[in-house]
Amino acid sequence: MAVSKCSRLSGPLIQELLNSVDNFLFDCDGVIWRGDQAIPGAPEVINLLKKNGKRVFFVTNNSTKTREMYAEKMTKLGFQAKTEEVFGTAYCSAVFLKHIAKLDGKVYLIGGNALSKELQKLGIQTVGSGPDPVFGGQSDWADVPLDPEVKAVVVGFDEHFSYMKLTKALKYLNNANCLFVGTNTDTRLPLEGGRAVPGTGCLVRAVETAAQRKAQIIGKPSHFMFDCVVSEYGIDPARTVMVGDRLDTDILLGSNCGLKTLLTLTGVCHLDEATAHQESHCAERTGMVPDYYVETIADLLPALQG
Amino acid sequence: MAVSKCSRLSGPLIQELLNSVDNFLFDCDGVIWRGDQAIPGAPEVINLLKKNGKRVFFVTNNSTKTREMYAEKMTKLGFQAKTEEVFGTAYCSAVFLKHIAKLDGKVYLIGGNALSKELQKLGIQTVGSGPDPVFGGQSDWADVPLDPEVKAVVVGFDEHFSYMKLTKALKYLNNANCLFVGTNTDTRLPLEGGRAVPGTGCLVRAVETAAQRKAQIIGKPSHFMFDCVVSEYGIDPARTVMVGDRLDTDILLGSNCGLKTLLTLTGVCHLDEATAHQESHCAERTGMVPDYYVETIADLLPALQG
Repeated sequence: MAVSKCSRLSGPLIQELLNSVDNFLFDCDGVIWRGDQAIPGAPEVINLLKKNGKRVFFVTNNSTKTREMYAEKMTKLGFQAKTEEVFGTAYCSAVFLKHIAKLDGKVYLIGGNALSKELQKLGIQTVGSGPDPVFGGQSDWADVPLDPEVKAVVVGFDEHFSYMKLTKALKYLNNANCLFVGTNTDTRLPLEGGRAVPGTGCLVRAVETAAQRKAQIIGKPSHFMFDCVVSEYGIDPARTVMVGDRLDTDILLGSNCGLKTLLTLTGVCHLDEATAHQESHCAERTGMVPDYYVETIADLLPALQG
Repeated sequence: MAVSKCSRLSGPLIQELLNSVDNFLFDCDGVIWRGDQAIPGAPEVINLLKKNGKRVFFVTNNSTKTREMYAEKMTKLGFQAKTEEVFGTAYCSAVFLKHIAKLDGKVYLIGGNALSKELQKLGIQTVGSGPDPVFGGQSDWADVPLDPEVKAVVVGFDEHFSYMKLTKALKYLNNANCLFVGTNTDTRLPLEGGRAVPGTGCLVRAVETAAQRKAQIIGKPSHFMFDCVVSEYGIDPARTVMVGDRLDTDILLGSNCGLKTLLTLTGVCHLDEATAHQESHCAERTGMVPDYYVETIADLLPALQG
């Protein structure tokens, strides 16, 4: 049966999708939980998928938790999850620097403890974490001493972001050989009740503007997150589905990597945004049209229990 | 005599230009001074232009000094300059908010004391100046209390820029009626010896990314700076020359406003950048080709003394 894109996943279509894939990639916030609350039914869906022999991975742009911290949170919320199933941008940035860029030196880090820990686990030393308030005047800023062993600047989420950090990043990046990595470009971090705080994308744009260079972005929709899963598990894109609540990151990642895509409406995107992309017939926007959508991933539950 | 663009201003061309204009707009840093040193001969040029009946104005994107501070610096360096001849983005932002946007409320200010003073001189109260380090966690940031009287966010140069300031700006700008002004978008502040520190443009981009809105930009190349001079002095664009060292701000402002344009090579731009724009025959780049160039504005001295 030929199915048009952006179809509601229900009835026999659910079983058809379950039969056609072996691997599930889930975004986390807005998909399997919201803040500190599991989406009702989500733990049962994940656990039954595994029981039915599917491989499940968690793919998140958030750089503020290590793999271990994610696995621990999941266990607490009732998900069966292992550390090695978690692919966050903190871990994937470390993999990129170590195995792709073959970094031989330290990282100047605009980012938090989790990012620093993931880098250190792969043997990469970091400098720069924590508060770094400004001092003195223009000449002091321009002449601020650098660590000569730093060979990369990494920008992740950092609530201690400051003008001094921006200045140091500019100075390191004046060296064209210094690598420049951004964990992700999400402009906002959505919280419960429609609230939001500035996301890593704001910090990445500030540093890019100062450095007059573009960062290599690790997070969705860049295909690198999926490359990480493939390199460790050898999964087949054609038999993989990406499940997410954001069209411009989750669904676009899936499209970019040749995966099936499933939008869930428990997060930040509404269905009319997906249909608007579809009806635009604009080539640039087709990647943001999911194959399927559900109100919540709990909609998969009856087919899994049946 | 028809003259092609980007001509070296020398010999009889100088006198021809002097005869054809009544008003000189000078950028400051890189044009009449570098850091704390006058460009040799620049004070004599400015003072002789005035003696010869020309009107002289100083038009700068820098928001870290008041008009009075600029006039004082100029006097110290040997320039005859009056406060009312100085048009900096601190002053012009205040004019924009007071007289164009008719702001009735306070400003949430990401910026320094000079910007705050210029706003206060026009009766606009500001909140937000000075250090504002982060505290608590995500919910504290999202729930940080706002001042209900704030009706505009202004972003200028601020060495105390922080994640907390970014968060507050996002919250104020979530109100679509809140005005959003950026003093300028210069990506770097050049210092002596080829050094540079991050410019206001980095902070504006960070706030724009968080707010998912574009700021109204006051500084060059936006025509508003020139509008300010016109509204106070009624000068004729056709009899005005803009003298600057930057193609993308000074020269483009002049082109945008129908002024004659003169590039001086004592600042950040090189002649080959101007000729590259000219030879591109690209419509978008023609505005960055100056009518004339000089090595230094001191090249005007013989004609003025003669």
